[in-house]
Amino acid sequence: MTQLHDTNYRGFASDNYAGAHPEVLAAIAEANGGHQVAYGEDVYTARLGEVMKQHFGESAEVFPVFNGTGANVTALTSMLPRWGAVVATSTAHIHTDENGAPERISGLKLLTVDTPDGKLTPELIDREAWGWGDEHRAQPLAVSITQTTELGTLYTVDEIRAITDHAHSLGMKVHLDGARISNAAAALGVPLRDFTTDAGVDILSFGGTKNGLLYGEAVVVLNPEASDGLLFLRKLNMQLASKMRFVSAQLIALLTDDLYLRSAGHANDMAARLRTALEEAAPPGLEFTRETQANAVFAILPPGVADRLRESFRFYDWDPATREVRWMTAYDTTEGDIDAFVAAITAELGQ
Amino acid sequence: MTQLHDTNYRGFASDNYAGAHPEVLAAIAEANGGHQVAYGEDVYTARLGEVMKQHFGESAEVFPVFNGTGANVTALTSMLPRWGAVVATSTAHIHTDENGAPERISGLKLLTVDTPDGKLTPELIDREAWGWGDEHRAQPLAVSITQTTELGTLYTVDEIRAITDHAHSLGMKVHLDGARISNAAAALGVPLRDFTTDAGVDILSFGGTKNGLLYGEAVVVLNPEASDGLLFLRKLNMQLASKMRFVSAQLIALLTDDLYLRSAGHANDMAARLRTALEEAAPPGLEFTRETQANAVFAILPPGVADRLRESFRFYDWDPATREVRWMTAYDTTEGDIDAFVAAITAELGQ
Amino acid sequence: MTQLHDTNYRGFASDNYAGAHPEVLAAIAEANGGHQVAYGEDVYTARLGEVMKQHFGESAEVFPVFNGTGANVTALTSMLPRWGAVVATSTAHIHTDENGAPERISGLKLLTVDTPDGKLTPELIDREAWGWGDEHRAQPLAVSITQTTELGTLYTVDEIRAITDHAHSLGMKVHLDGARISNAAAALGVPLRDFTTDAGVDILSFGGTKNGLLYGEAVVVLNPEASDGLLFLRKLNMQLASKMRFVSAQLIALLTDDLYLRSAGHANDMAARLRTALEEAAPPGLEFTRETQANAVFAILPPGVADRLRESFRFYDWDPATREVRWMTAYDTTEGDIDAFVAAITAELGQ
Amino acid sequence: MTQLHDTNYRGFASDNYAGAHPEVLAAIAEANGGHQVAYGEDVYTARLGEVMKQHFGESAEVFPVFNGTGANVTALTSMLPRWGAVVATSTAHIHTDENGAPERISGLKLLTVDTPDGKLTPELIDREAWGWGDEHRAQPLAVSITQTTELGTLYTVDEIRAITDHAHSLGMKVHLDGARISNAAAALGVPLRDFTTDAGVDILSFGGTKNGLLYGEAVVVLNPEASDGLLFLRKLNMQLASKMRFVSAQLIALLTDDLYLRSAGHANDMAARLRTALEEAAPPGLEFTRETQANAVFAILPPGVADRLRESFRFYDWDPATREVRWMTAYDTTEGDIDAFVAAITAELGQ
Repeated sequence: MTQLHDTNYRGFASDNYAGAHPEVLAAIAEANGGHQVAYGEDVYTARLGEVMKQHFGESAEVFPVFNGTGANVTALTSMLPRWGAVVATSTAHIHTDENGAPERISGLKLLTVDTPDGKLTPELIDREAWGWGDEHRAQPLAVSITQTTELGTLYTVDEIRAITDHAHSLGMKVHLDGARISNAAAALGVPLRDFTTDAGVDILSFGGTKNGLLYGEAVVVLNPEASDGLLFLRKLNMQLASKMRFVSAQLIALLTDDLYLRSAGHANDMAARLRTALEEAAPPGLEFTRETQANAVFAILPPGVADRLRESFRFYDWDPATREVRWMTAYDTTEGDIDAFVAAITAELGQ
Repeated sequence: MTQLHDTNYRGFASDNYAGAHPEVLAAIAEANGGHQVAYGEDVYTARLGEVMKQHFGESAEVFPVFNGTGANVTALTSMLPRWGAVVATSTAHIHTDENGAPERISGLKLLTVDTPDGKLTPELIDREAWGWGDEHRAQPLAVSITQTTELGTLYTVDEIRAITDHAHSLGMKVHLDGARISNAAAALGVPLRDFTTDAGVDILSFGGTKNGLLYGEAVVVLNPEASDGLLFLRKLNMQLASKMRFVSAQLIALLTDDLYLRSAGHANDMAARLRTALEEAAPPGLEFTRETQANAVFAILPPGVADRLRESFRFYDWDPATREVRWMTAYDTTEGDIDAFVAAITAELGQ
Repeated sequence: MTQLHDTNYRGFASDNYAGAHPEVLAAIAEANGGHQVAYGEDVYTARLGEVMKQHFGESAEVFPVFNGTGANVTALTSMLPRWGAVVATSTAHIHTDENGAPERISGLKLLTVDTPDGKLTPELIDREAWGWGDEHRAQPLAVSITQTTELGTLYTVDEIRAITDHAHSLGMKVHLDGARISNAAAALGVPLRDFTTDAGVDILSFGGTKNGLLYGEAVVVLNPEASDGLLFLRKLNMQLASKMRFVSAQLIALLTDDLYLRSAGHANDMAARLRTALEEAAPPGLEFTRETQANAVFAILPPGVADRLRESFRFYDWDPATREVRWMTAYDTTEGDIDAFVAAITAELGQ
Repeated sequence: MTQLHDTNYRGFASDNYAGAHPEVLAAIAEANGGHQVAYGEDVYTARLGEVMKQHFGESAEVFPVFNGTGANVTALTSMLPRWGAVVATSTAHIHTDENGAPERISGLKLLTVDTPDGKLTPELIDREAWGWGDEHRAQPLAVSITQTTELGTLYTVDEIRAITDHAHSLGMKVHLDGARISNAAAALGVPLRDFTTDAGVDILSFGGTKNGLLYGEAVVVLNPEASDGLLFLRKLNMQLASKMRFVSAQLIALLTDDLYLRSAGHANDMAARLRTALEEAAPPGLEFTRETQANAVFAILPPGVADRLRESFRFYDWDPATREVRWMTAYDTTEGDIDAFVAAITAELGQ
């Protein structure tokens, strides 16, 4: 097969426009060859279990899956009876970007709350956390938060702790959508378990694809009492990889020699570089709409500017009504990419 | 990461115990680097669309997915209204090995029929194909066949044609589970489209993983009028890969330079070698239970023999009640593997 | 069986605390005796079909069901593919009072919008009506409105027409939850079809139970092109009555000699009497929170008053946070009931 | 409303072609009037709870629902996790006559077994009761039996005990579909609890409609540890009647003064009368295909005879392939009905 694409092109559309990290590809090559038991009884998945325990504590159990929606839906389903509902933000990926998979696959009712910054709080949770025992109301039995959030913001450890304490006091469990959990670890500068297991999170979707894997995420159960039937749910949710050794090998690589931190930290740095450079240049008409706490920058541009910039740099509108755009950086974004983009923006804005 | 397994060990448990073919890994490496649009708007997926048309005709549309259960359920769901039912054999993978995913994910009722050899016929279909318009009965609106079957048998082109003619005459659509479609192509010695598109099949699950991919299958719509909403269903069924370029690149590699035929043909040859050698040796107590038409050999062994053999060669019981076992060969099975296994079996059986 | 309850007690909790209208019981008695074909092929259901055509036009098709949630979910499911979503108010019964049945039974995603008065408008619909073709987003393909609304308010004919025109221009269908459709007809003073069929509504849930039936509602398809498979969906949604003659006979009774208007009009009058009397009395601390356009009055009472009133008159809190309560009248509410309640309220409020 | 049907016509098609028993109508009239709390917190439902405890033991909890499919699906769902499967006969109503509701509403996989007489046995259960812990297989965690069966046959108390003992020893729960439980009680001549609670059944669908109710069945939990969440499941399964007092009042009437036994016993007697008379007449060409143990007679008639008989007496084909027909008697079948039918059959068969 001939290479069909320009391997030098990179944009700011999404961290999953990037490819696979070389260390990840190397891990796949090492895991290849010979026969290994399918469906997760291989040595790589066993090793991954140990590695995850090192990061998330001795109670942690890992269930590798294919993708983020699969991880989220499978994790949440394992936490909830058929009459359960999930309190989440109205910007949560499970609500806005999964074509109703939580509802359609598992019948989960989402009870959503508007937020200023993509983050739940105990007070915001209370807007939907009520009505237990009332058979007419979907029973709010879980909270789902995203770290880092879909708006590029970051929960502190204390903020997560406050949420889990509150949820647990109400008899609710807590799920963390960690599609960008590595970016959070890099931004917070603390071990993964500090803002997950030790902060009271019950179960998480551990993200790999947005941080340099070919494919592969994992449901990680932190509190085994909060989850039931994952072995079966993963299969019936069509998330059970036959050649699971390759998912596990990638995740091991990500967690080896801090690749997850190196990659996500770099992506965060590139977003900070973009934000800082633009703040310093302060081109007329550019307005930032969210804090840049991880690998995303949200901004508003004057009419027409976004489309002209997109002739060279791909990125998405976030809210066409307000002309808000989103710029994502990835593990492979270079300083040169940032500098060229800053130059293009400032040029376009007439400075 | 250190290599954790013995790359020289191979057994006869399943074709997905094997790893990835080197040409597949090479294709992934070529597709890597730079940024490509996520979720299938990349150049590799576009190319795959062309390649599939070459194999299955100009009407063919391809939707890459993660795994076989995902392909089957998504394909069938796109063919059926909420009140639809699927006629299939009682040995069909969708009935026996998907933990109820067709029922649980999509509410599909399976109407199953016992068969002597894992193959449906018009007569067998008629046992469950009735009751249209009766609101009490799940409406039989699709037939699903597997090629090659779960019992290692093979439909001829004419047999498939008879099924599709019959199904269509009843207003039913036909799905083909092609987890081992390459083995069928190799065994039949005809182009893929001869026993699919040109034989009247409406939609198929095109298998990759069992024939040397890391992961990756595809729903291929052959008759666009028989399927609706696949774009949405793939997403909500949690089968949409963000970095789809890597699924597509693997499938392209499989369909390039006849890799699919070379690999599957070799696997078939190895099964034939095993069958022939054992038939010639005719060790006492060994009995074959199915025809060997692709890459599977089914046999009955005297009590205790299977477990002793499994100390060196991994394989599965098929039916513990009858002591029937299944031996699968893969693209990477060697003549030496076969000869060693034959020697072990004959030794064990006292010849 | 001895009568176990006080048949003279009536409160203001809900219109389905009331029993069955004598004309309804008489209709059941007439439909009794002998054998009639089960599951809807009886003469009463056939007659109901004719009666519904008289009210809703020649295209109308009726499918009697058991209850309102069943009518809503079955109607909506018949309008939507598996990837569809429904735009509705955040106070809609389908969102707040059906324990997620739309999501759990049919995988329908609800896209909810906050409103000031329980009524959608084209502008409010547009907040969620977008993203067609985007596989990540549940596809907004239907609008559901409630008439009269859960807040006791009433759409004018023109308001419904504006919604259906807008929805249809976007390729969306319109469902009307008519649990209290008779109250709307009485309040508007126009024939049923004026604000349904002729106003562009595609399908409706016709309410019977809240207006004097023992049980029984009906899905009425006004635009046959907007609905598919109701025959099968009613059965698989467990809403198919075997002795359907009795559901149909009740609905016929309701639509005979304008019983639906007499009963609902009386309930409306009683709510108006309550509202007017209290406005005239203007007891200190009483505040009305919604318009009274049908058979509901919403008010805020000083702390403690609601509970004291409830010692004699049962009614519900609507929003405990604001102390808002809801008072519903029914077909059997008497002027004496209202006068006694007004006296109790004014007495309690110290006048 | 004018009476639209001939109240003197009765046939042999189904026990739910019959209407409501006068004692049932009287109970509805008594429960009418005044306001009662909706959704089951009324005095009649409370009383029904006591009545059911008298019949099924102190642990029994009752959840009235609308219809048999609703009872079966809700009961089974409350017993099973999302990965559960139900072993049942291939003639079970849940498999053949509910349009896939168990699968579609709750994702329940049915594992069906062919039987000679519509009855499971421990040996027959074992055909599908295996594979626990295997994530690929829907987990067989419940057994469902029907009493009396869809083939008109009857389990003895010992046969049920053998099934429940076996199921429980395998960690499986037992559901009894009692759509015709009263016919069984009458046929066995023992109290209801003898072949349910005391025979180890965990949960049952208590049938009312086929035995003289307008509508209404009940899920009765016999072993509270075997069921979870029924309060919520009934609502989300759209089986929660708002005016539940009327369902409960009917069920109370059925269980008062042995109405259930009087009605079902009479139906059984009429079937026996039909069977006996025909056996004595022994008209040429008539062949019985099943034992008559309750209120059904199955027979084979010579070609054309069934259709000619149906000009006067409605009944159903059971298996068109074999010309097997089914004749059901009901609580209101008279001796005259039987004698006229016997005369018609013998006349038709040329005696």
